[in-house]
Amino acid sequence: MSLQGAGPFVVGIDLGGTKTLAGIVGADNQILGRSKRSTPAKEGGPAIVQTIVQCVDDALKNAGLTRNDIAAAGIGSPGPLNPDTGVVLFSANLNIRNFPLGPDLSAILQRPVLLQNDVRVGGYGEFRLGAGRGYQNIVAAFVGTGIGGCLILDGKVFTGSTGNAGELGHIIVKTGGPKCGCGAHGCVEAIASKTAIARRISKAIRKGHPTVLSDKLAKKSGRLKSGELADAIARNDLVAIREVHRAAHYLGVGLSNLSNVLGPEVFIIGGGVAGALGDPYVDLVRASARQHMLTDPDEKIQIVRAALGDDAGILGASLLARERFV
Amino acid sequence: MSLQGAGPFVVGIDLGGTKTLAGIVGADNQILGRSKRSTPAKEGGPAIVQTIVQCVDDALKNAGLTRNDIAAAGIGSPGPLNPDTGVVLFSANLNIRNFPLGPDLSAILQRPVLLQNDVRVGGYGEFRLGAGRGYQNIVAAFVGTGIGGCLILDGKVFTGSTGNAGELGHIIVKTGGPKCGCGAHGCVEAIASKTAIARRISKAIRKGHPTVLSDKLAKKSGRLKSGELADAIARNDLVAIREVHRAAHYLGVGLSNLSNVLGPEVFIIGGGVAGALGDPYVDLVRASARQHMLTDPDEKIQIVRAALGDDAGILGASLLARERFV
Repeated sequence: MSLQGAGPFVVGIDLGGTKTLAGIVGADNQILGRSKRSTPAKEGGPAIVQTIVQCVDDALKNAGLTRNDIAAAGIGSPGPLNPDTGVVLFSANLNIRNFPLGPDLSAILQRPVLLQNDVRVGGYGEFRLGAGRGYQNIVAAFVGTGIGGCLILDGKVFTGSTGNAGELGHIIVKTGGPKCGCGAHGCVEAIASKTAIARRISKAIRKGHPTVLSDKLAKKSGRLKSGELADAIARNDLVAIREVHRAAHYLGVGLSNLSNVLGPEVFIIGGGVAGALGDPYVDLVRASARQHMLTDPDEKIQIVRAALGDDAGILGASLLARERFV
Repeated sequence: MSLQGAGPFVVGIDLGGTKTLAGIVGADNQILGRSKRSTPAKEGGPAIVQTIVQCVDDALKNAGLTRNDIAAAGIGSPGPLNPDTGVVLFSANLNIRNFPLGPDLSAILQRPVLLQNDVRVGGYGEFRLGAGRGYQNIVAAFVGTGIGGCLILDGKVFTGSTGNAGELGHIIVKTGGPKCGCGAHGCVEAIASKTAIARRISKAIRKGHPTVLSDKLAKKSGRLKSGELADAIARNDLVAIREVHRAAHYLGVGLSNLSNVLGPEVFIIGGGVAGALGDPYVDLVRASARQHMLTDPDEKIQIVRAALGDDAGILGASLLARERFV
């Protein structure tokens, strides 16, 4: 038997509002088996736990292992949540409130379970195994439906006194700008998320601007997949190109703010939008950030694309669980 | 002899563009003697060192001590600077470049000298001895001619990978807003500093709005002392009141951004403007920050006025020097 992928094995779970991912991870941080299921977000907590367990069993099967082979599990979940008790305090996406996700899953798997915020888990994965390897001060921004962030300061995940540090989507870069879900106006999330881009494109459609996204945005009441946005850009759709430029510009402003305050070594840009649009998108964000930050003549501060894609959550969750329990 | 104020004694120096302060500080962090001189900013490095030495000798005399009684000195200086070599890399205010302020002073005093950024030194003073006592995560903002900041994270001054973390004056809160000295537009400093307030009042005067500051701002080509601003407000000057409200509003937006990203326990508002305008000003900043930050229903995050006034620099510099050398 090869040492690669040797145990003890840990399950990493990435619980999202639309899909649940699980992976069985060896001590060398290789993923031996994966699985993916739709999250039954409308059916509440017990159905979600059921789906997670099925997902874990699928991944174990794909790895040629059984529940007896795993030592612990880690879950990244939308929050806010309490990592000490394993309780998700509230999630609009998952339709749960004060739900003991960690303890319930632990009772079924008969293994210790670590619960942590999904964005923090993804950031930790990138820090340890992805684009953040070798750095000690990192700001990770994940751009999708919303914009989440994770700070690694002096080599540790920084959660602040509130336990929720890292909410860089709610940096206000345009006072009086578009209303954000948080209640404020002009947050980065309200201008630079996929949701914000879709809203701007819908508005352009209503104004009569031609775009290949007309049908999709009309059909789906304003929802847009990152891949559809990438397709539109590949087809030289001027409306999509303009709005992605604008969003990247404002995300760059937000990152420049953090650059001046935190002086990190590297910004990591991840999430569905960065994954689908790739390096050209990250190039736009970087150009805007450099334009707005205080001088960094030696370009010491790196701005790079996330390296782990969808695996960031699985790997980060498994690492945190392994460090805590194994 | 009382133990209070007992040695070893350390000199704390606060070097500013207009005035130089020195204080002799005992092991109990009491200031035994102080002094103050105008900084000969136009005369270059050697004249500045000479003034610092005179200031130290004045303070020693006031404390009834001699140079032999001091163990070390700490200086807070405008920067950027290199704390390891004691060299000020550049200061427009002091008219120096690559000047070995620390070594030169050390050669004259025959004592080890610590050099650190003035804002960081002031923030450290507030953290250890002022409004930040008992907290571990602090954002300090000093509002004067410019806006400087200092981060204390997990009980330590955080300088980031650039060594210059904390530049919260250059958070962009109004993309496309007024031009800042840093080259960007819409930075907090460009909207909420005393300089920005004076510029707005000058503009109002040109538009014919009546204000008690007309003569002062006309005479002094737009320069304004914090005390003059406070006097105008005490006299119910509507232009001054409006502009201070506006500035406090935008500073609050900037702090709310940091609240969401860093989740500190306390924001400390210091500097000349906060000192002169007092609690009513801090109340305005707090109201704006609370309005814009993500929910903090228990009002866990405190926003308070700095406690040490002009002593913050002297005390912070003496503490840093004592911790390093004594």
